[in-house]
Amino acid sequence: MYQLYIANKNYSSWSMRPWLVLQAFQLPFQEVMIPFPFERNTGTFKQEVLAINPNGKVPVLIDHDLMLWDSLAICEYLAERHPDQHLWPQDVRQRARARCIAAEMHSGFSSLRNACGMNIRAHLADVGKRLWQDNAELRQDVARIEQIWSERPEVNDFLCGEFSIADAFYAPVVTRLMTYALPVNESTRQYMHTMLQHPAMQLWMEGALQEQAWVNYLESYQQQPL
Amino acid sequence: MYQLYIANKNYSSWSMRPWLVLQAFQLPFQEVMIPFPFERNTGTFKQEVLAINPNGKVPVLIDHDLMLWDSLAICEYLAERHPDQHLWPQDVRQRARARCIAAEMHSGFSSLRNACGMNIRAHLADVGKRLWQDNAELRQDVARIEQIWSERPEVNDFLCGEFSIADAFYAPVVTRLMTYALPVNESTRQYMHTMLQHPAMQLWMEGALQEQAWVNYLESYQQQPL
Repeated sequence: MYQLYIANKNYSSWSMRPWLVLQAFQLPFQEVMIPFPFERNTGTFKQEVLAINPNGKVPVLIDHDLMLWDSLAICEYLAERHPDQHLWPQDVRQRARARCIAAEMHSGFSSLRNACGMNIRAHLADVGKRLWQDNAELRQDVARIEQIWSERPEVNDFLCGEFSIADAFYAPVVTRLMTYALPVNESTRQYMHTMLQHPAMQLWMEGALQEQAWVNYLESYQQQPL
Repeated sequence: MYQLYIANKNYSSWSMRPWLVLQAFQLPFQEVMIPFPFERNTGTFKQEVLAINPNGKVPVLIDHDLMLWDSLAICEYLAERHPDQHLWPQDVRQRARARCIAAEMHSGFSSLRNACGMNIRAHLADVGKRLWQDNAELRQDVARIEQIWSERPEVNDFLCGEFSIADAFYAPVVTRLMTYALPVNESTRQYMHTMLQHPAMQLWMEGALQEQAWVNYLESYQQQPL
């Protein structure tokens, strides 16, 4: 039984990725939630995370006495531990592509990530419209993502055929495109639809919608509801 | 025979990582250099890279008709293709740690990377001194790197025992600490020494020192020599 430490499902895109992989491949795991504080660097969040991970960040995977603290490394570790489950695509070409696009997400798309923080329950179409007009780098990030998604084997497929780690890495983008109502093409909408039908994706999003916590420093665009 | 497309050895930290892995493990490869232009978005660099990689970036690995465009994905691919060479550590614990620290570098340390661009032939101790005083996030990045490096199994070891992909990922940091003469502790200096003795590291740095090209937009701190 793994333990996966995560933060709020509404906000924590890094937590979402390995959680989706564990859930989608039905690997046995216990979810441990450490919610973000109301204001940055307040409350006990940092101390609670530091107690398990010297890097002070989530997600963290615990496997007996092993601790892994990076979302991509967690997924590679799980893929290696469960070779029969094919967390990466079986086909060598699709597997290479899956690793490239997951790693590209891991190191890139900072404009999208910074301007459009994940916020599953929010509806920020007006904010998205303004950002889209003003932020050329955001438009470039989305264009590159649409290019990557369009290269999936079939229009009804996941990014590299069956659901894989690559899809988990782009899952937060699916929610961002909805939250900020960014203009995307038909192929992109089809992939979003495919992802939104996936049971693991649905389960995470339901969890996000049930959360009550308001994290003020992750709500740049909204006032706290009274 | 692989082909690895890289940019200037003096400047391209992303190119350095998979090149070191190929070289250190003596995998058969042909290096193809596409030098950066003098000014950003001039010359034929972008077109030459786009001809092989729609993402427009180096490094790129070609293996027959397969193209990989991300440095970490390239290394995972090579590790998978050459399982007997142990590009990741053999020990499961060290392998997990190696993947975590490589992925942490892949997605993080933006303050160090932005403030202290790789520039192997340059001597920028005065710049480094000023940056160190003014830039708290840079100091935090270096502190975290010193923490990671200090956790290697033995003081004379590489990061996870034998030389592995993890060391290749931190190799550009070794050169940055020298270029900018940032203050580091004795354990860090010992690891830098270990890395600087590695034949693949020496070969890359010799290549960098032989380069004549001046890339103006990567020389924020120096005037072009006449």
